Amino acid sequence: MDEKAKKKALRSINYGIYVLGVAHDGTVQAASVTWVMQSSFDPPLLTLAVKKDSGTYALLRESRRLALSLLETSQDAVARAFFKAPRAEGDTLAGHTFGTDLTGAPILDAAMSYLEAEVQSIDESGDHAVVIARIVNAVVRREGVSLCCRDMGVSYGG
Amino acid sequence: MDEKAKKKALRSINYGIYVLGVAHDGTVQAASVTWVMQSSFDPPLLTLAVKKDSGTYALLRESRRLALSLLETSQDAVARAFFKAPRAEGDTLAGHTFGTDLTGAPILDAAMSYLEAEVQSIDESGDHAVVIARIVNAVVRREGVSLCCRDMGVSYGG
Repeated sequence: MDEKAKKKALRSINYGIYVLGVAHDGTVQAASVTWVMQSSFDPPLLTLAVKKDSGTYALLRESRRLALSLLETSQDAVARAFFKAPRAEGDTLAGHTFGTDLTGAPILDAAMSYLEAEVQSIDESGDHAVVIARIVNAVVRREGVSLCCRDMGVSYGG
Repeated sequence: MDEKAKKKALRSINYGIYVLGVAHDGTVQAASVTWVMQSSFDPPLLTLAVKKDSGTYALLRESRRLALSLLETSQDAVARAFFKAPRAEGDTLAGHTFGTDLTGAPILDAAMSYLEAEVQSIDESGDHAVVIARIVNAVVRREGVSLCCRDMGVSYGG
């Protein structure tokens, strides 16, 4: 396989960028994620790939619950603040206030909408875990066009 | 759960649009797909969700091999031609010529690049099958910005 071609073709896949929030046993963490997609209408399923050696994944594996904060095109600075997967300090994550809803996972106050889901199955065969989760809650706070990687000029692939 | 909010939030997830090609036992078929993402760097994995009651999925389940044709922003008419998942007639798919490479799955001649992959595992718990496939070949024919749903003004979610 041509490694350069593989990298280039994979970087051509289009993604959005979201903030994945998890909480377990008093630890609250959030990370920007791009490998996210719906994978079923009925039941409503979400599939995402989360780096296996990350703190976010360690918490998710235990809690089996997650929140996905959706951001607008104008909120790339918010997305960038979560590249390093901050843990909560007091009532903020990387300086951004958050709340919780059904699952207890952190949801950014800045999010235009959010989804909450319960983990149904996990495949750990790659360096990222493929997590299939059932959507249990959805809230839209305002209308807007959601942020995507192309808007930010970043790629996560290859 | 608020069904309207669920639909709206899910439609805010950003996707590209690709042409999935499959072939089994002399039958060749291709369909536009949006729920596609990379899910691992090493090993290189691709995860996609394919409608379980589709002909494309029936073939993929047997062949365990697939090709993903990547299109450019200017090629939305090509993507649209595959909404109805045409089977090959002679040497064309919906009027578009195709070829094959490593896996035998059809690749559009019009594609700017393509990936080929071998199915590693399938989760059938939703109305779409979540297919995890290992990338075995990648070819870039020319540079370009890849087509996404936003370019086409279509959404596939909710």
